[in-house]
Amino acid sequence: MQQIAQITDFSALPGLHWQENGQLSLSGSLLRLYKKIDQKILSFIPDIIFDEQQFSPFISAEQLHKLDYLHGFPHLITMPVTLDSSQASLQAFTAAPLNENGNLNLTNIAPCREVLTPAACYHFYEKQSDTELNGPCYLTTLCTCFRRESAYHPLTRQWAFSMREFVCLGTQEEVQEFLQRFEKALNSYFQKQLWPVIFEQATDPFFNPLVNAKYVVQKLEPVKREMIYAGNVAIGSFNFHRTFFGERFNIRRQGEAVFSACVAFGLERWLYAVLATCGPDEKDWQI
Amino acid sequence: MQQIAQITDFSALPGLHWQENGQLSLSGSLLRLYKKIDQKILSFIPDIIFDEQQFSPFISAEQLHKLDYLHGFPHLITMPVTLDSSQASLQAFTAAPLNENGNLNLTNIAPCREVLTPAACYHFYEKQSDTELNGPCYLTTLCTCFRRESAYHPLTRQWAFSMREFVCLGTQEEVQEFLQRFEKALNSYFQKQLWPVIFEQATDPFFNPLVNAKYVVQKLEPVKREMIYAGNVAIGSFNFHRTFFGERFNIRRQGEAVFSACVAFGLERWLYAVLATCGPDEKDWQI
Repeated sequence: MQQIAQITDFSALPGLHWQENGQLSLSGSLLRLYKKIDQKILSFIPDIIFDEQQFSPFISAEQLHKLDYLHGFPHLITMPVTLDSSQASLQAFTAAPLNENGNLNLTNIAPCREVLTPAACYHFYEKQSDTELNGPCYLTTLCTCFRRESAYHPLTRQWAFSMREFVCLGTQEEVQEFLQRFEKALNSYFQKQLWPVIFEQATDPFFNPLVNAKYVVQKLEPVKREMIYAGNVAIGSFNFHRTFFGERFNIRRQGEAVFSACVAFGLERWLYAVLATCGPDEKDWQI
Repeated sequence: MQQIAQITDFSALPGLHWQENGQLSLSGSLLRLYKKIDQKILSFIPDIIFDEQQFSPFISAEQLHKLDYLHGFPHLITMPVTLDSSQASLQAFTAAPLNENGNLNLTNIAPCREVLTPAACYHFYEKQSDTELNGPCYLTTLCTCFRRESAYHPLTRQWAFSMREFVCLGTQEEVQEFLQRFEKALNSYFQKQLWPVIFEQATDPFFNPLVNAKYVVQKLEPVKREMIYAGNVAIGSFNFHRTFFGERFNIRRQGEAVFSACVAFGLERWLYAVLATCGPDEKDWQI
């Protein structure tokens, strides 16, 4: 295995610009690596044709509420808020847009009905609502996702990050085969790359986990497995949803709520894995 | 010239999914067309190497305030708001996340210091703050931008939309040559395509324009020209900023505030132009 963590300060890499407000920009060789990683991930299961889709970043709060997300993860959500559009309230805002601490003066905000999506695949279930599927459905998207955290680190914990997701909607057998094929392909890939990745059962970071029934269910019936790089960075996850999304969004197959699963990859964390494994020089990067 | 507006309902196109909350998703042939349009736009000036960069979507409100944006366009801004992170306030939110109208219950929000960027190029000026440039700087990015409007239409007026921008920072001559080369390339392109595009002087949509000094300056000293498709859809713009950004962000060239200009393209509006010119069938699409 190659040496791990040759880079002590990921914010100091050329082409990586990390801003005080937890925002990342990429350029040069790192942006090229980011695009290559996405292409590599898209190549793992070459014989399934995934229908690629591209989404705007907002998702309806009402739709997200169908998943109990607002109950389960209120600490993570970011909402796109606008000012009340009356002349008086816009005028009041322009008189002092920022207070003495540099915070926006949000005294008159308009009603807000959207959330900046915390996961890429939610868009798919919403879009497929109230449909009957005739066969398995294989979907993929690359999406900016948003999760507020108490602290941010470049590449590994960002307020905004890039998620490449693959989704299968189908029968239980189709969905499980999809997960198994990804797991097999990733196992080979990590071995070939000599990446120190283990697959580990995980639970989502619920608010008040011990009193949240869904957390308890996740503990009893494991549905999420993560790909953990070097003991502490989850670079991807396998998620078997059973019929949860099928039921909540009335997506059916052969008259029954459809099964679903997704495989999700955090692209910035894959950048981290390449850099931590191979070092800072472009000539050493292998993906 | 080919027939215009063969498509009466753009929200009914296959592969275009338009949601109630003004969000667009693209798939299939339309997503392929979107990517081809971006590649075409990137090819207009082949002998300038533009440094491509990718940004997270938030920009610091304090930085945006340096441009008087919060004064000039309070009606357009969208802000990423999170809940106050105390246990009590998260608990209060989870008791009733949505009110009876489906609006989020935003009674306890955390201080907010960011804006969802309304234009792609602002990221560049912030990043180049307090630097001295040795030569001209040519930059490009594809960025999701956000502008709240009173009504939305698929492809032509969206809350979130894709902007491909090219920026030149340099001397007055370098910046003007950059603009002229784009104008010449675009003129040839629109003629070849038989697109009904005219270049027209424009002003930004200021709040309270008649009392806004910057609006008056824009009227007196034209700095913005738009590419207007079929009389009513601005599919791009040329913007000559003189030393405005150089001064506000302290970006210097030969000891003086740098000149800058940008050329911006709305990718969904280019999709609209192709579809309105060529019709809904993929085999007829020429770009």
